[in-house]
Amino acid sequence: MKRTRLSPEQRRAQLIDLGAKMLAQRPLEQISVEDIADQAGVSRGLLFHYFASKHDFHLEIVRHTSSEMLARTAPDPYVEEARDPMQILRSVLASYVDYVTENRGTYVSLLRGTASGDPDMRAVFEQTRAVMSERTLEQLPAIGIEPTRAVDLAVRGWIAYVEEVTITWLRDPHLTREELIELNVQALPALAIAAAPEIAAALVSATTT
Amino acid sequence: MKRTRLSPEQRRAQLIDLGAKMLAQRPLEQISVEDIADQAGVSRGLLFHYFASKHDFHLEIVRHTSSEMLARTAPDPYVEEARDPMQILRSVLASYVDYVTENRGTYVSLLRGTASGDPDMRAVFEQTRAVMSERTLEQLPAIGIEPTRAVDLAVRGWIAYVEEVTITWLRDPHLTREELIELNVQALPALAIAAAPEIAAALVSATTT
Repeated sequence: MKRTRLSPEQRRAQLIDLGAKMLAQRPLEQISVEDIADQAGVSRGLLFHYFASKHDFHLEIVRHTSSEMLARTAPDPYVEEARDPMQILRSVLASYVDYVTENRGTYVSLLRGTASGDPDMRAVFEQTRAVMSERTLEQLPAIGIEPTRAVDLAVRGWIAYVEEVTITWLRDPHLTREELIELNVQALPALAIAAAPEIAAALVSATTT
Repeated sequence: MKRTRLSPEQRRAQLIDLGAKMLAQRPLEQISVEDIADQAGVSRGLLFHYFASKHDFHLEIVRHTSSEMLARTAPDPYVEEARDPMQILRSVLASYVDYVTENRGTYVSLLRGTASGDPDMRAVFEQTRAVMSERTLEQLPAIGIEPTRAVDLAVRGWIAYVEEVTITWLRDPHLTREELIELNVQALPALAIAAAPEIAAALVSATTT
């Protein structure tokens, strides 16, 4: 590959992007610095100019991938206003299921492979889940649920539920895409009822109108 | 420590038991073969007579711990008969919450530490979750839920929900033990409703009588 002139920021972004693409084909621990340097047409030494270690490089790939997933699954503020809260939730879950389906190798190997045992990688995944929890909690008052500590816990648990159900489905897809999305969507108000039985009545009336 | 005469089976069990006890104090990767051999009063070489490698020894510790957890949380067939299905579920979850509270170091480090990234350890955890799923699925017909593929997936997801909620609670216990148990218990019928809305009516009538 011809060596092209890039600014340091561009070069760094290019290297991370090449790593993230490679992650779709193989697990993180099999992404070598040599392969990436070759693809980018730079020396191995230059790559270590941008990243302190192989582990640091891998961590940046994981951060990039997590940001991409969060960007893809962000609620759309323009489309949202016209919709009811359950439709917003359905649209977020559809984006999530489509993202992980397109990136199944990446998604499964990060959350269920060796990376899941690394403290720094885990911190990135935890941060990603925290963003997803916060986004979800923000939507709850619109369906009649005021956050309590039990509801907070239930939403965290719901994120784990969605991950587990979706990864199991990716490996053995007995349900259709639409059935999977609905399973994940309906779980949220169901768990919120379980966490806050006193507002069950209000919720049922909000979701059935 | 005085070297005592044990049969090979007893010696093997003793070494695993010492390892499991040490796991309560430190993560798996910090359990050295030397420490265990010293405690048991045997040579490092003898330990490797029983276990092919340090990794094998660690794996047996994890298997032992998982079996112990499954034994502690098994539904009690004698007490059960007198109870309704939700009471059985409540009793299983109470045993689970008490087990992981007593063994919080072990539980959190196995499921959220380095071990969670090891393929062999993961296989043990997956097997443990599969047993918990099967036990749960067996109870569902009694509350009016016949297993479908969506219900199967929901039960797997519920196991992940319970793990995440419980680990979050261990780290930051805002709820009481009883509130946590109830949060986990109520999530199961709630998720089953979400997975099989057509039987919601039957379920509601079964759980409220």
